[in-house]
Parts: sequence; C-alpha cells; structure tokens
Amino acid sequence: TAVDKGADFANYFCTYAFLYHQKEMLSDRVRMDAYFNAIFQNKHHFHGKTVLDVGTGSGILAIWSAQAGARKVYAVEATKMSEHARELVKANNFQNVVEVIEGSMEDVTLPEKVDVIISEWMGYFLLRESMFDSVICARDRWLKPTGVMYPSHARMWLAPIRSGLVDKKKSDYEGAMDDWFCFLNETRNCYGVDTSVLTKSFSEEQRKYYLQTSLWNNLHPNQVIGTTAIVKEIDCMTATINDILNVNASIAPSITAENTRLCGFSGWFDVHFRGSMENPAQSEIELTTAPSVDHSTHWGQQVFLLHPPIHVSVGDDLIVNFSMNRTKENHRLMEVELSCEIRQSSGKLLPPFRNKFYME
Amino acid sequence: TAVDKGADFANYFCTYAFLYHQKEMLSDRVRMDAYFNAIFQNKHHFHGKTVLDVGTGSGILAIWSAQAGARKVYAVEATKMSEHARELVKANNFQNVVEVIEGSMEDVTLPEKVDVIISEWMGYFLLRESMFDSVICARDRWLKPTGVMYPSHARMWLAPIRSGLVDKKKSDYEGAMDDWFCFLNETRNCYGVDTSVLTKSFSEEQRKYYLQTSLWNNLHPNQVIGTTAIVKEIDCMTATINDILNVNASIAPSITAENTRLCGFSGWFDVHFRGSMENPAQSEIELTTAPSVDHSTHWGQQVFLLHPPIHVSVGDDLIVNFSMNRTKENHRLMEVELSCEIRQSSGKLLPPFRNKFYME
Ligand SMILES: Nc1ncnc2c1ncn2[C@@H]1O[C@H](CSCC[C@H](N)C(=O)O)[C@@H](O)[C@H]1O
Ligand SMILES: Nc1ncnc2c1ncn2[C@@H]1O[C@H](CSCC[C@H](N)C(=O)O)[C@@H](O)[C@H]1O
Repeated sequence: TAVDKGADFANYFCTYAFLYHQKEMLSDRVRMDAYFNAIFQNKHHFHGKTVLDVGTGSGILAIWSAQAGARKVYAVEATKMSEHARELVKANNFQNVVEVIEGSMEDVTLPEKVDVIISEWMGYFLLRESMFDSVICARDRWLKPTGVMYPSHARMWLAPIRSGLVDKKKSDYEGAMDDWFCFLNETRNCYGVDTSVLTKSFSEEQRKYYLQTSLWNNLHPNQVIGTTAIVKEIDCMTATINDILNVNASIAPSITAENTRLCGFSGWFDVHFRGSMENPAQSEIELTTAPSVDHSTHWGQQVFLLHPPIHVSVGDDLIVNFSMNRTKENHRLMEVELSCEIRQSSGKLLPPFRNKFYME
Repeated sequence: TAVDKGADFANYFCTYAFLYHQKEMLSDRVRMDAYFNAIFQNKHHFHGKTVLDVGTGSGILAIWSAQAGARKVYAVEATKMSEHARELVKANNFQNVVEVIEGSMEDVTLPEKVDVIISEWMGYFLLRESMFDSVICARDRWLKPTGVMYPSHARMWLAPIRSGLVDKKKSDYEGAMDDWFCFLNETRNCYGVDTSVLTKSFSEEQRKYYLQTSLWNNLHPNQVIGTTAIVKEIDCMTATINDILNVNASIAPSITAENTRLCGFSGWFDVHFRGSMENPAQSEIELTTAPSVDHSTHWGQQVFLLHPPIHVSVGDDLIVNFSMNRTKENHRLMEVELSCEIRQSSGKLLPPFRNKFYME
C-alpha cells in the first residue's frame, strides 16, 4: 500500500493550492464558528503554549491560535498555499509566533514537542481524504504526553432518508443506456463494427457512475425519515490508523415518517472540542454537519441511494450493516457496503438487500 | 523533464479507461468518417500488411485495419481499455489478426517492424496531451523505411474571432472579485483576520482561471472575422519531438468583417491522410476541426479571449506573434503567448498588446 506521491499530489493536494478552494472553507460559517469558538472560549489551552497546525492551508487556525496567546505555532502545509499562509501571518503581525513550514506532515521535523495539535482534517463523511492519518502521525511524533487534540472527538452518523435524487439518477442512467443503444446501431450500420459485446461493461460503468456513487447533498431535516445512529466514534487522542482503516457497524434505525419511500441512507459527522481528560475544555464546542435548515456546511451530507426505493411507514424497523473501506487504487477514496433488512410494523419481513457504493 | 508516471496516469490516462469517454470519440462522425474513409478508400495500404495502432482505445482503428485486409495489427493501449478492445476484436472475429497489447507505447516490444502506423493522437488544438510524442517514438522504433503514417500530415490554424464569451468571462471574473471583497470584510469583522494581503494573489488566480484560460468552443463560421493562417505544419513521417516542443509563428491576418469586435483568436487543426511519397494514398482524406455549421467535432476550437475586445473593421491588418510551449509542471498542457499589433485601414497603428494563456 505504498502511496505514489506524484499521483497523490495530482489527485488530492493540488486543489488545496488554490485560494479559491481555501476561501470556500473559510466561508463556511458553521466550520469557522466552531473552530473560532473552540479556540477563543478555551484560551487556557493556547495561552503561552506551543501549537502544531496540521495542514494550515491559508493559516487561519494558526493565526487564531496566536491571537489566543500561543507562544509558538508550527503551521505545516504540503502545498504552495504555504506561501500565502506566510503572507497572511505577516500581514496580521504574527511572524514572530507562527512559523509556516512547507512540507508533508509526515516528512517534517519540529524543534520541539507541542501542547496542542489543531487541524481541520475532516473530509466528506468524515474519513474521505484520509487526512486524519497525517494527524495521527503528527500526534504520535510531536504531541507532549500532556497535550490536547483540537478537535478531540469525532463521530459518524447514518440515517434513512427520502430524496427525489433517486428518480433523477435512475433516469440519467436510463438516458445513458438509451444513448448507448443508438450508438451501437450507428456504429454497426455506418462503420461495420458490432459493439454489443461491450453493452454489459458500459452498463456497469454507468450504473457505478449514476447509481452506485454516493452524492454530496444538502438535505432538509424532514428528508430524514427515521432514527439516526452512530456508526463510528473516534477519540482523536488514542485512535490508531488501524482503527480508522475500516468502519463496520450494525445499526437498527426505525422509520418515523408516515407512508413514505426509503430512498437510501445519508451519512454525516460531527466533531467535538473537549480538550483532554486531564486538561478539559472550559467550554465544549461542537461542529456538526447534520441536515439543517440554517446551519448547513460545505461538507453537506453523503447520500447513498437505493434503486428502487422501498415503501416504508412509521414503526418499520431496519437492520443495517454498514461497512466502509478505502479503495485499493486510492487510499483517500472509500467503498461502502450497505446491507439492509426491513421488518414492517405488521411483522412482515421484506427480502434483505445489499448495495455497494463508491465515495469518489 | 522526467515524467512522473503516477501523476501522468492520474492526470491524463485515467479518463481514457472509461467506455463513456471512448464512446464520445466513437460518436464524433467527422472523426469517424475521416479515419473510416482513409482506411477503406486506401485498402492498398492495408491489404496483406502489418499495422501498428498507437493508443487503440476501444480498438476501432485496429479492427478497421483488419477489415481492410491487414495481415497483422498490433494494437497498443496504456489503460485497462485494452481489455475492452480485446473483447471487441474477438466479437468481430479478428482475434487472429489483431493483437491487443496493454502497455505504454514507449515500453512495448513488437516482434517485427510494421508497414503502417495508424493513430488518433490529436488533442485540443492538435498538440494538447502531447500524445504525438508516443507516435514519434513508435515510428522511430517500429516503422519500416517503406512504411506510411496515418495520418501523414497535420496543421494548426489561427484566426481572429468575435464571441460573446468575452463578456461572460469578464463578468464571471468580476463576480468572483465582488465575492472576495465580501469575504474579506466578513473574515475581518467576524473572525478578526485581515485577508486583504491576499487580494492580489486571489485576483491573479481568478484572472488566470476566467480570463487567461483558453476555452473549448464550437464556433459558428461567421464568428471568424478575418483571414485564417497556418501556425504549424507537421509531416508525421519526419517530425521530431524537438519540432513539436514549441510552436512559434508570426502571421498577418486581415479583418474581413465590417465594424465588429476583435474578441480574441481561435485555434484549430486539420490532419491529412496522404500516405507517403513512394506509396501515396489513392484517395486523400482530410479531417478538419475548423468552425462549421454541420461538421463540428468533439475537439471544437480553442478560443483565446482578449480583455477588453477591440473595435475593428474590414481592411484592418493584424500582425500576430503566436507561441505555444508545454508547461513546466505538466508536459501535456500548454502555455500560449499571443502578441498583436493592429494597423487600421486608415493607416493608424493601435498600441500593441501581449497576452498569456493556459490551455488546461
Ligand atoms: N500530510 C499533510 N501534510 C501537510 N499538509 C497537509 C497534509 N494533508 C493535508 N494537508 C493540507 O491540509 C489542508 C486541509 S484543509 C484545512 C485548511 C485550514 N487549516 C483551514 O482550516 O482552513 C490543505 O491545505 C491540505 O493541503
Ligand atoms: N503512450 C501511449 N501508449 C499507449 N496508449 C496510449 C499512449 N498515449 C495515449 N494512449 C491511448 O491512446 C488513446 C487515444 S484516444 C483514441 C482511441 C482510438 N484509437 C480511437 O480512435 O477511437 C487513449 O485510449 C489513450 O489511453
């Protein structure tokens, strides 16, 4: 599982080198408020302390840490965004506190251990991008035994949902297949080559693209049609890479909406800033990416659609087995398997089903 | 200039591994007709001969070569599309003629030299993707001295144009900057960090994205407002990589439209199938990607916009210096410099200007 650094840069890091992309994150008020409050309502964690910001991007968390009184902040960034971070630090007069270091966290050497590791490492549905690996690596090498992690805890949630996307994606898929059959005829009639042998592969490719790829969505809370459950809890102080390689959970949500369609499941996450057991936060802050009318985030939720949707109603009970793994080709992308059994409130069991999804 | 293979695959090859993408090329009637006619109207080049198809993709050109009577076809493809090519070859009963080889052309060893090299290697504005490098490499290693190249010649064209895109892109850019200033205020007021030092870099990033990136466009012929000129001619039999690393040309187009705006320049290409001097085509075929109402291609044209556009009219003469180079970061992408002087029909000289563009 050696990572090709050139490919990893082309696939992953390169987007972070654009101010446009950093600005999108800096414009996410829910995200910004959470980190801002976490820092400034817990100044005792920062005052006079040394801080490491893993993946500093524009430098925002490093500057806030300095504003909260940090003695020294190491701000590590893999991309050329480090140069802008350095400019921003200087323009805000913290060049004596914040040291921006361009490099991969994994390769960087610091002159000392730190009291706080702060990082905004969360990807879609928490684990996409696998950036927490770099935070774990930083923690194990550079956090003092008495140190604290910002954030300190993270959780993944899953819930049954309804969504019109299920019809949209189905018809996109069918359109692509109609197109294929026209193409097939044309290629045979005009160009003398029979491509029908590829129909199965084409249809699999298109199914994967339209039906089996999880989607970014900003759900309305009333699209959640059942109870929500936690599929993963992470203690950022103790989690190992092994702990986050796979997520496996069996949950039993109940349908809480009357006569509706189970169109799929949605996943989101929250993180908490609680400090450590020995050195707790004065004010605990939560950052949640749950469906919300007024507090949506750039992460939105990930949606895993079921084709076809299934009629359900209040009191139907589900048993869902959820499993998420990294793909073989790219350790920053995920494959998800969802199997589901439905016991209707009448007691009738529907045939179980199993679906595979790609989080690209 | 060593190429990182992992990054090259992530950036370039990966898209070709999708049937969807191959299908798009196979649905381009202009492209298909040209290769189809080139092969079937020149069967003497194929009958009983050995053929190498560089980058066979779905295998279409290899199968046509076999249908035209080739004794043996080597069909080389870098991506997993090779497996579909193999299926297609088999389904069309040419498994005894066409041998599909998965690998980079640069790494592949053939058991013999060939009579024909066929390839569809053309990218946007001909040279984007730099795939002709691989064809040159194949030719120098595997073409018999008596062999022929399919296509045999290629040309790049440039013409002055008008286009409403110039206004669209300008307003997109201005919208992005308006957004930036809102963001700047919000970040200062709500989060106590002054990001104004990044304004220049953000504006440069956005200028590059909106104003200096060449665009794909399917131009109407009446958007061409002047004479068109050739900026590069390639003889596929003799061209070296050195010959195609840069394109430099000085051209002098005249405006042929009355009272209009010079909004920029457009580039396109054509290729010809003429066989070789010793073994000419019986029927010469042309594939052109020039602006056309009825015969547009998936290549469209590349458009290089001028901000602001300039008022011109019939009889105005331009002197344009065009130069195109590969980017340092990615040898498959191009940078273009266009400088221009306008002598109005009245004799008045407008101040010269110079623009840089990225073909991404
Ligand atoms: N292993 C690693 N080493 C250094 N930087 C990394 C990294 N993995 C990810 N990054 C960087 O981490 C950043 C995550 S985005 C968060 C940026 C900033 N901390 C903010 O909160 O606004 C990106 O800029 C990315 O380039
Ligand atoms: N150096 C190289 N070695 C092998 N294949 C290559 C290559 N460079 C590009 N290719 C392949 O060349 C193809 C170009 S697209 C053309 C496909 C096909 N010949 C057709 O005409 O429809 C892609 O499938 C790409 O993966």
